[in-house]
Amino acid sequence: MKDFEVFGNKSQGYNFVESLKSGRSLFSFVISYTETCEIPGITLAGADIDSIKFTPPADAEYLHYGYCKTIDKIPMTPDGKPTPGLLTKTALESASIPHLTINAGSKIPPKLPFIDTGMSSGKNISVSDAMTDSQVSHAVDYGRIIGRSLASLTDCLIIGESIPGGTTTALAVLRALGYDARVSSSIPKNPIELKNKVAASALERIDSDHPYSIIAKVGDPMIPFVAGMLSSASGVSRVMLAGGTQMAAVLAFASKIGFNEENTVIGTSCYIIDDSSANFVGLIKEIADIAAISVNPKLEDSEFPGLRAYSEGFVKEGVGAGGCMISSMAKTGYNSAKFLEMAEKEYSRLFDSN
Amino acid sequence: MKDFEVFGNKSQGYNFVESLKSGRSLFSFVISYTETCEIPGITLAGADIDSIKFTPPADAEYLHYGYCKTIDKIPMTPDGKPTPGLLTKTALESASIPHLTINAGSKIPPKLPFIDTGMSSGKNISVSDAMTDSQVSHAVDYGRIIGRSLASLTDCLIIGESIPGGTTTALAVLRALGYDARVSSSIPKNPIELKNKVAASALERIDSDHPYSIIAKVGDPMIPFVAGMLSSASGVSRVMLAGGTQMAAVLAFASKIGFNEENTVIGTSCYIIDDSSANFVGLIKEIADIAAISVNPKLEDSEFPGLRAYSEGFVKEGVGAGGCMISSMAKTGYNSAKFLEMAEKEYSRLFDSN
Repeated sequence: MKDFEVFGNKSQGYNFVESLKSGRSLFSFVISYTETCEIPGITLAGADIDSIKFTPPADAEYLHYGYCKTIDKIPMTPDGKPTPGLLTKTALESASIPHLTINAGSKIPPKLPFIDTGMSSGKNISVSDAMTDSQVSHAVDYGRIIGRSLASLTDCLIIGESIPGGTTTALAVLRALGYDARVSSSIPKNPIELKNKVAASALERIDSDHPYSIIAKVGDPMIPFVAGMLSSASGVSRVMLAGGTQMAAVLAFASKIGFNEENTVIGTSCYIIDDSSANFVGLIKEIADIAAISVNPKLEDSEFPGLRAYSEGFVKEGVGAGGCMISSMAKTGYNSAKFLEMAEKEYSRLFDSN
Repeated sequence: MKDFEVFGNKSQGYNFVESLKSGRSLFSFVISYTETCEIPGITLAGADIDSIKFTPPADAEYLHYGYCKTIDKIPMTPDGKPTPGLLTKTALESASIPHLTINAGSKIPPKLPFIDTGMSSGKNISVSDAMTDSQVSHAVDYGRIIGRSLASLTDCLIIGESIPGGTTTALAVLRALGYDARVSSSIPKNPIELKNKVAASALERIDSDHPYSIIAKVGDPMIPFVAGMLSSASGVSRVMLAGGTQMAAVLAFASKIGFNEENTVIGTSCYIIDDSSANFVGLIKEIADIAAISVNPKLEDSEFPGLRAYSEGFVKEGVGAGGCMISSMAKTGYNSAKFLEMAEKEYSRLFDSN
């Protein structure tokens, strides 16, 4: 078990890991978009600013087909570091965990079958409200419907996300809901000042402490949708929110609309937990009495610089990578060395074929 | 077991029913559209010709919410006979069988979360080709993807459909593939002459015996999509095609693209099996060595004329009603009298609230 660490509600976390060994898991990948990501310098999720909007559908396509249809290569940072979806894909395939894509406001629909929600993208919170109140209600309602359906098909519903710029909206939502949040991000020299400035200007627009109104003003479509999923799914099966700061914001909003703590954990990578600028564990404890499970895939041992980069603070988390690695390694019994070997094989496949 | 009868490969059919008792089932409801339904007199799936296109999404909404959002009332025939979805809903709810809606070319998207396929509606085969060859390929490919995903989430994937006018395209496909098919339909005085005329004129356009080309010329979007689902799903789990003539056409096309017979059955209502004009059992035997399972819900015993009408030859089948009743009664152990009681309760709820 040295590859995992459990924080927060520890006994719940260990029980959760135990249950993953024999039960069925289903990964649901929620893709979305906030125009907040178009603020220069705020995200690296995409090779350049025009390609950011293709990252969520391309990640979905890569998980599904092993290559992308919407863009030529798999999503990567401007200097060629690959999407954390590489870790997700390795995790899902090695443990035969099925997955479904859900479009909750992506600007570009993915070229594969997906669950549609009729949701729109979110606006840039530095200049306007993200959504209307009724769009927030729609997101929660549809999240509840889909969460209930998917949870009834599995023992553990893993929920991951791809929403470029999402740490900034998550930061704003957490602060608006009263938490002392600091963000993690896909960039090692986290542009904290920029994110703080954007969040602060968005917070000025808040004129009500109603949680729906807060999401409408400073959030993004992913947050209310995944919170709705969690709210219904946690009544039916176990749920693992797979992600970092964005999932903390989901948890904070979900605690306002209600969910079953006993069935819920956050699963993430050690790169989020170790990020001294973010205090992730403290934040989760403040929000809910659940476990935060962390996995260390020991990517610093990789022969490939593109994989070592994760351990050096690049990318860190996304596409549900941490949670999927936890579920996969618990189910297969593989340790991190074996997992790394498989991730490296996938890395070679990608960069030989690209 | 008197409520069920098994035809064709009997031992396979009895084993299938036995497996339904303990295993998980998932109902996937495929909605689609062919403009062939706009030929006056060819279908009763809708109160009038303008409302036919709302029937598939309205059936999906009714299954999901218990009422429709796209139209005011539940789908019914011009003289007020309710959708067979009433039987489907009773079956799914009484056995807690989860379900998902898939949009495979419906003219109107349903107002609920659904799996999207990017497919278009089919054209009227009496005047033009139904689809292009590449649309057929897309339907098969997406069917395969979705079938594999859903089958990995359950022990038995039940597939039902709603495509008004679909018996006519099914008839044309069956004949084009060389079967001596006669059709069943939602109308007691089955407009056989009209359907034959439409099918015959469509068959004249066929200039290749390639199965994809045949579907493109005289089929509809549902047939290749569900055949694709069957093709991949039957390799992973058991599959029940829930329906009558349309599912025979699916089976006929699937036998060209390949599927696992051992895992596949057709489940339908006795009103299809008993329809002397259709020779359903003989047709299935000709196509594949699988079981056809029939359920008799004894609706002739109902106090409500709207339910008795099914047993008098109206509607007969649709929305996967027969297959869902089989799965539900096998799982709950309820007999047809108990099932009828629940269906009557649902009927009262609908017609008191409408």
